Amino acid sequence: MSLDPVLTRIDEDLPAAMDRLFDLLRIPSISTDPAYKADCERAADWLVADLASFGIEASKRPTPGHPMVMGHVKGDGPHVLFYGHYDVQPVDPLELWDRDPFDPQIEDTPKGRVIRGRGSSDDKGQLMTFVEACRAWKAEHGALPCSITFFFEGEEESGSPSLLPFLEENANELKADVALICDTGLFESKVPSIMTQLRGLCGEEIILTGPDKDLHSGMYGGAAMNPLRVLTRILGNLHDDQGRIQVPHFYDGVPDLPEDIAAQWDALGFDHGAFLGDVGLSAPAGEQDKTPLEMIWSRPTAEINGMIGGYTGDGFKTVLPSKASAKVSFRLVGQQDPHAIRKNFRAWVEAQLPSDVTVSFKEHGASPAGQMQTTHPAFEAARGVLGAEWGHEAAFTGCGGSIPVAGYFKTILGMDTMLVGWAKDDDQIHSPNEKYDVESFHKGIRSWARILDAIAG
Amino acid sequence: MSLDPVLTRIDEDLPAAMDRLFDLLRIPSISTDPAYKADCERAADWLVADLASFGIEASKRPTPGHPMVMGHVKGDGPHVLFYGHYDVQPVDPLELWDRDPFDPQIEDTPKGRVIRGRGSSDDKGQLMTFVEACRAWKAEHGALPCSITFFFEGEEESGSPSLLPFLEENANELKADVALICDTGLFESKVPSIMTQLRGLCGEEIILTGPDKDLHSGMYGGAAMNPLRVLTRILGNLHDDQGRIQVPHFYDGVPDLPEDIAAQWDALGFDHGAFLGDVGLSAPAGEQDKTPLEMIWSRPTAEINGMIGGYTGDGFKTVLPSKASAKVSFRLVGQQDPHAIRKNFRAWVEAQLPSDVTVSFKEHGASPAGQMQTTHPAFEAARGVLGAEWGHEAAFTGCGGSIPVAGYFKTILGMDTMLVGWAKDDDQIHSPNEKYDVESFHKGIRSWARILDAIAG
Repeated sequence: MSLDPVLTRIDEDLPAAMDRLFDLLRIPSISTDPAYKADCERAADWLVADLASFGIEASKRPTPGHPMVMGHVKGDGPHVLFYGHYDVQPVDPLELWDRDPFDPQIEDTPKGRVIRGRGSSDDKGQLMTFVEACRAWKAEHGALPCSITFFFEGEEESGSPSLLPFLEENANELKADVALICDTGLFESKVPSIMTQLRGLCGEEIILTGPDKDLHSGMYGGAAMNPLRVLTRILGNLHDDQGRIQVPHFYDGVPDLPEDIAAQWDALGFDHGAFLGDVGLSAPAGEQDKTPLEMIWSRPTAEINGMIGGYTGDGFKTVLPSKASAKVSFRLVGQQDPHAIRKNFRAWVEAQLPSDVTVSFKEHGASPAGQMQTTHPAFEAARGVLGAEWGHEAAFTGCGGSIPVAGYFKTILGMDTMLVGWAKDDDQIHSPNEKYDVESFHKGIRSWARILDAIAG
Repeated sequence: MSLDPVLTRIDEDLPAAMDRLFDLLRIPSISTDPAYKADCERAADWLVADLASFGIEASKRPTPGHPMVMGHVKGDGPHVLFYGHYDVQPVDPLELWDRDPFDPQIEDTPKGRVIRGRGSSDDKGQLMTFVEACRAWKAEHGALPCSITFFFEGEEESGSPSLLPFLEENANELKADVALICDTGLFESKVPSIMTQLRGLCGEEIILTGPDKDLHSGMYGGAAMNPLRVLTRILGNLHDDQGRIQVPHFYDGVPDLPEDIAAQWDALGFDHGAFLGDVGLSAPAGEQDKTPLEMIWSRPTAEINGMIGGYTGDGFKTVLPSKASAKVSFRLVGQQDPHAIRKNFRAWVEAQLPSDVTVSFKEHGASPAGQMQTTHPAFEAARGVLGAEWGHEAAFTGCGGSIPVAGYFKTILGMDTMLVGWAKDDDQIHSPNEKYDVESFHKGIRSWARILDAIAG
């Protein structure tokens, strides 16, 4: 089955593909707001019907929350699972939108034509690039080049409460050779990027108690230990002068960056000046012997995400507080063990406490880093064909955050996940005036056709 | 004029003195709540009438807030000014009171008889000990042993907004040789104490800004400088391991404790174990080469009174905050200059900032320490006679906090202030079920009679 006529058909069918996407965008499937429950059902029904319209055996599957959509089709090549989500973020504040978020429209902008509307990028537009590629392939050749399982979720924007149990209950039906997800973007809005490493997370809250009540600093100041003094002393030691984290054994399991990946990252020409400049900064703050891309993709971090103690209202109060607390999170990479990190951090805090201060801890989540085994041929196959579509060679990249579903696919279904997507940095996902470039949609569909072709071999 | 018949008259007149105090306590003169404005007027009128009843030329003086009460009487000896305040704290939460706060009553308790009611200790009861001593003296001898100016304020519990302008406008009428204030307590509820050193205060707020908006720690964590990391680092360095404050020149103007005062303090046998144990602590937290009493009375401090940044609600949010702030105060002693302290602290903070973090400061008050010149004979005279009343030799003590009026008397009227009072540690001033021991009231009146006699010489 040859690729070229599929690409031609995609080009010719683009107006109809956009009409279909607009139908889906008009359904306000906001998963977090119970008022939109029926709309989430409607979006799931729409997807079932759309898959069925080109011969995919599809169904809606109930969950305690919003339904999943599953579809299966047999092909000659390897078996891939494609995951996307049909739910969208809320639209508040509505007054910041230039138009109705659920009345999508093509707009001409100085940077090109865009599809404006909630979900146009995240994730309905991206999800439909895969569906449209499959539709074109089927229409042209009467069959698909791979066996494909379609798997769409309706709770991604509200914490995916039903996902884990659904995966466990339906593991046999869901298992494939490799998973594909289209929910990420082009590197610097230009370079096709396949995310192969995702940082993990360990969240921890520290609550220090000194005196058993708030004290007057005139009466007790000088004699009574202030827990804010202790907490600033401890957390002020979290990093050394070179940005290295001081918790013992913290770097156990942190791998060196492989040379081939380092070379790909160098070739990206990351403009860290612009990246930091966009948020009013200029100096990369991590380990000073690492590059800025390493700092956000392949190195672990420690951040104080919140801290509070004493009087924080207007004016001044000379209180010597009883308690001080902080929320601290660690981004993890490689084989770092979140449970060992937590244990070592707690011991490190406890070792620094003076006799009059006690500590309690609260656990806030622990997930290891995700490191894709790129040995599955799909990874190099995809990387090899994307350059022809986008004019830039594709790279295996990292991601500073976590994408929990990729972790679940690994642990529950034993699959690696290829994360690839066509979003641009200015798509304003989760914000007013979300958009998706027509270029992202069009070339995205063509890209999936190329990837399926390459995976089929 | 001999003292003994005055003391005898005080003993005999105690029931009537208590009746008078109860009349005053029944007036709910809560200065901070506008609903009680007429009651504050009524309390002032009551005092004018009471002073007039034993021959003092007294009047109510209007201010933009609640009125002052002034009274004058000529005597043979030195000229003293007595200050007290007739306003009281609010009574919330009312449900924690065992009785109507403005229906005072004598109660028998395991520790002795007490006068229960709002203002019984702070400051109506204490104020009346001086008035009653004068009344007895006048009744017995037809005259007073000193020239006395009575000066009662009605805004002490609400920040004294009218005090400073009133002192400036009426400086000539108010000037005397020495001021007396009865608004303090017995040391450890037993030892008569004359406060001769009060700590000053310099309050400062630091606001650090890193990125120009809150960031996602997945995307930016590692590369972007976190202002909480910087603020903990800086404030964690405020004290060294020995409890000494690290701001350059901080100890300029801090005097050594004079040997005679050190000897008096040693003789007090301060039970710092109980002092700290009452609030759940055990280890004195200040400079490790100083005694606990020095830490709270004669040594300067630096305390973080409040700190906030990032997400501080329930649960967890992996935010990398744009801003972090802290309120810091310094208690000052001796000749420490609050303005120099502020300048040096700001320079010390600025010198520790990395390139990507900016700071702004807010000023929250500056008052130098108060060090009474105890060379006026009233001080040693009073110290010499109080032991006979209380069974413990009196001491010149310090006070960890500030008493602004004493500072104003010094700077505006050129007078030192002798702060002496009969309150006990468990009087629950500002709290529900405020009380004043009958012993405090009775011996307090007798004490003032002794002091006036000693001052007259």
